[in-house]
Amino acid sequence: MSKGPWLDEGEQQAWRSYLLMKRTLETHLERHLQREFGLSGSDFEILVNLSESESGRMRAFELGRSTQWEKSRLSHHLTRMEKRGLIRKEACDARYPEIVITEEGLAAIKECAPAHAARVREFFVDVFGPERLGVLGEVSDEIVATIGKHCATDCPPEVRGTA
Amino acid sequence: MSKGPWLDEGEQQAWRSYLLMKRTLETHLERHLQREFGLSGSDFEILVNLSESESGRMRAFELGRSTQWEKSRLSHHLTRMEKRGLIRKEACDARYPEIVITEEGLAAIKECAPAHAARVREFFVDVFGPERLGVLGEVSDEIVATIGKHCATDCPPEVRGTA
Repeated sequence: MSKGPWLDEGEQQAWRSYLLMKRTLETHLERHLQREFGLSGSDFEILVNLSESESGRMRAFELGRSTQWEKSRLSHHLTRMEKRGLIRKEACDARYPEIVITEEGLAAIKECAPAHAARVREFFVDVFGPERLGVLGEVSDEIVATIGKHCATDCPPEVRGTA
Repeated sequence: MSKGPWLDEGEQQAWRSYLLMKRTLETHLERHLQREFGLSGSDFEILVNLSESESGRMRAFELGRSTQWEKSRLSHHLTRMEKRGLIRKEACDARYPEIVITEEGLAAIKECAPAHAARVREFFVDVFGPERLGVLGEVSDEIVATIGKHCATDCPPEVRGTA
């Protein structure tokens, strides 16, 4: 089934098109958030996670699992967001404080969400169209499952992300 | 044609599946590069760009355009890579030095390329399969073109990335 490690010309082309699209879209969405709402892509990601959690609060390790960021990146970023009043840390447990979205953080995410959704629609959803978008969703789930299965059996902790 | 800014449930689902896939795949590929070859994803990206350029050398602004990184991130990262002997800066022009891949950088990229390609095949190319992969390549090119057209007419310089 597999043709060995190297990609043939068509595969290579598709992989590069995907990489360029991923980067172009990400950069474009992040620059708009920054310019119009003063939020970085990282701020946005943390705020979305917290605002969609049941109580507006999560443990740092849950945020880490969800964002897949390294611990030090997460910890530094949360400290910066706390200084800006977007989140606060509540020490229910001395070692594992809860991260809570503030009124200000909630207002920030509510303010930018419609404009962000409009851009995702214009540059991604509408370009795909319903049929191709459905296929992408399916393959994406398959890829996540394939990597998950591989990591459950074959990956050392530092690749699984549990180190 | 467009249904307003908000995504419906299916669109939202596909967008989230895509975001999770993108992050999971990226994290997985980067952790393997780090663990097995001591290269970060950023190192890999710079080395791939330089090794595929005609002469193994590029101006920093060309690397910036190709990676879409902010100037300060690029500049800091190139300094770190120079200290590790992976690249060197050649001052053909005082203001715009050329970035040159070293023998050591070339050896590093040659060493990790087959293992990296094998993972891209296993977790991306083979899961998509030829037909769905072809469609993804097409849509990706359409998205890049759509954003490019938008930026050429509607984006301020800090969103276009030319600020």
